[in-house]
Amino acid sequence: MSAPEFRELDPPNRLLMGPGPANVHPRVLRAMSLPPIGYLDPELLKILDEVMELLRQVFRTKNYLTFPISGTGTAGMEAALYNLLEPGDVAVVGINGYFGGRMAEMASRCGARVVTVEAEWGKAIEPGDIASALNKEGKVKLVSVVHAETSTGVLQPLEEIGRLARAHEALFLVDAVTSLGGSQLSVDEWGVDVCYSGVQKCVGCPPGLSPITLSQRAWEAVRARGSKVQSWYLDLTLLEKYWGKERIYHHTVPMNMIYALHEALRMALEEGLEARIARHHRNASALRAGLEAMGLGLFASPEVRADPLTSVLVPDGVEELAVRRRLLEDFGIEIGGGLGHLRGRVWRIGLMGETSRESNVLLFLSALERVLAKGGYKTSPGAGVLAAQRVYASSENSSRN
Amino acid sequence: MSAPEFRELDPPNRLLMGPGPANVHPRVLRAMSLPPIGYLDPELLKILDEVMELLRQVFRTKNYLTFPISGTGTAGMEAALYNLLEPGDVAVVGINGYFGGRMAEMASRCGARVVTVEAEWGKAIEPGDIASALNKEGKVKLVSVVHAETSTGVLQPLEEIGRLARAHEALFLVDAVTSLGGSQLSVDEWGVDVCYSGVQKCVGCPPGLSPITLSQRAWEAVRARGSKVQSWYLDLTLLEKYWGKERIYHHTVPMNMIYALHEALRMALEEGLEARIARHHRNASALRAGLEAMGLGLFASPEVRADPLTSVLVPDGVEELAVRRRLLEDFGIEIGGGLGHLRGRVWRIGLMGETSRESNVLLFLSALERVLAKGGYKTSPGAGVLAAQRVYASSENSSRN
Repeated sequence: MSAPEFRELDPPNRLLMGPGPANVHPRVLRAMSLPPIGYLDPELLKILDEVMELLRQVFRTKNYLTFPISGTGTAGMEAALYNLLEPGDVAVVGINGYFGGRMAEMASRCGARVVTVEAEWGKAIEPGDIASALNKEGKVKLVSVVHAETSTGVLQPLEEIGRLARAHEALFLVDAVTSLGGSQLSVDEWGVDVCYSGVQKCVGCPPGLSPITLSQRAWEAVRARGSKVQSWYLDLTLLEKYWGKERIYHHTVPMNMIYALHEALRMALEEGLEARIARHHRNASALRAGLEAMGLGLFASPEVRADPLTSVLVPDGVEELAVRRRLLEDFGIEIGGGLGHLRGRVWRIGLMGETSRESNVLLFLSALERVLAKGGYKTSPGAGVLAAQRVYASSENSSRN
Repeated sequence: MSAPEFRELDPPNRLLMGPGPANVHPRVLRAMSLPPIGYLDPELLKILDEVMELLRQVFRTKNYLTFPISGTGTAGMEAALYNLLEPGDVAVVGINGYFGGRMAEMASRCGARVVTVEAEWGKAIEPGDIASALNKEGKVKLVSVVHAETSTGVLQPLEEIGRLARAHEALFLVDAVTSLGGSQLSVDEWGVDVCYSGVQKCVGCPPGLSPITLSQRAWEAVRARGSKVQSWYLDLTLLEKYWGKERIYHHTVPMNMIYALHEALRMALEEGLEARIARHHRNASALRAGLEAMGLGLFASPEVRADPLTSVLVPDGVEELAVRRRLLEDFGIEIGGGLGHLRGRVWRIGLMGETSRESNVLLFLSALERVLAKGGYKTSPGAGVLAAQRVYASSENSSRN
């Protein structure tokens, strides 16, 4: 055997302001590096119970079935759809961005009949359009929407759609991958029957798990299925036997990721959920003010902007990819490009979890000004930073009053 | 918000001698706790390329499509079956333990017609029985077996079955969850078309990834499908676009798990694959000699015993669960119980990855002797440890000659 050609890893220091992963607190990384223990070790089972309870608090739910799926947010999306949909079921799927489209694609792979309710990217789905679809269709199994569309930065209002779904005896499924821990979300109060998320955004973990929660109504629907769930790995009837009281082996859970999630959730509750959401709002407001003061246009409609992710239009004459590359190479800052037809047309700037800090907003606006200036786009010097500082100052004043 | 009720995690120190996870070297835990970077960061893409190359060396393959699935070994099993099988396909599935049964269940969830070829638990599948099934059936899409059955500790010989599958133009699929890195396995030389593994056993990582490799023949079969893969998350045609040259976003890969895998694979190649496999063999031989010297019966047939996992019959009159509990509570040692109809009848003792060390074998045999004695099972004092020591001494002599 020849000597190994591969050096020890030495990933660069990055400020992660893209669509996720976000930066992670050292406490979370330290928890993740604790030694693994067995998947039926009584000490691990206690940790699992704690993680379920912590997740209930963050989802704001009393749902018993609340635990992390052993995969990323996409696995959570698949688990949600695949457990609820059977061939022939009708799913009303709201699409106002890339991830809504992904849900429709997955739902169709279940053999469901997918009725799409679309809105222009950058806008929210109209509850009236959902109502029309529900009225037109006979029996609808579920209605799904994306809470914070990571492709556009739109925050979808949920309560009205929740009421409509319930009135039509359809289940209400919500993708909270980007919103959980960074935007207001009340699973029980808003009548959400199934909600899943990722952990690498506002929850504050590295990626690898997807928390999911199911209402009693949703769980009964899963148990009333006539056919087996088409994924064995994501079959909630089997997963419940492990995460629930029976503790029957299903697969070897990634306990180090679960350690990390436990610590991230502890930190979120130490901060306080309201304070954490307010922090995400304050920093996003400052970022948006700064970007607009630099003459840049925000993509999402003003009334439905999600705090964790801000999409910005690339100005005419500016090379989209070159700006991202410069930010990464000169400043170690990652931001995201556009997905789908927004490719090359927007930047996506995340302020999620540990990344959502005043210092990061100020640094980013300064760095962006420098990079844009090199690219020939002139802004009033310091305008972005000044506008952001004004937001911070006024929020201090208002919190003093 | 009330003060958090949950303390910082403090998992106990365990010697993990169950069916996995095994103990993990601090170098691997340290790599895992490096900060995450973006899934399209050029520095991450280099790491992905390195992991693919390292995996090729450990699988002993030149297959281009060789990478970790973002889930545990069970997700790898599902990815392998779901990408290759379409409704109506015929799959010949060897079953000689719990995991073979799981493969049959998953294959049936693809709508495939599953032809099972069974052997008694504890024995290997007979190639002649596979040949009969292939001759009886018309067109068979794939033949699958489990290399090291974690439920029984049987190591399935592969080469003959590989030849049979190829002669019948069927793909050969192998579950190497427990064998990779701890038993001889040569994907290319043995004609294996699809092979997947876990990382928490002989690879030396915490659980959470499932390395998979596909031959050109298998990859062509995936691309020639008439229907979409029923899992979007595990759809190799989409995953290839991210792991391959195009680098198109599919899901946010768990990069911290990938860091850990990179370090574990580096360590495996530093040790040398042959030396590592020899280490697993030496320690398993000593363990088996010790157990037999204590009068215990090994469950798997002598000629097909897997080194990573040894199954032992629970002696009459000994309470299976009480012994495991005592080992855990008094010595911090985890071993596994039986699965399926072996529940209560066997113990499963893993010597995998970092756990496979002489010191662990000697400690375990001493601890087991003490625990069994308390349970009323008498052995000749020190017989187990003495027998193991003789194996180590003779292996030193033979390696000196």
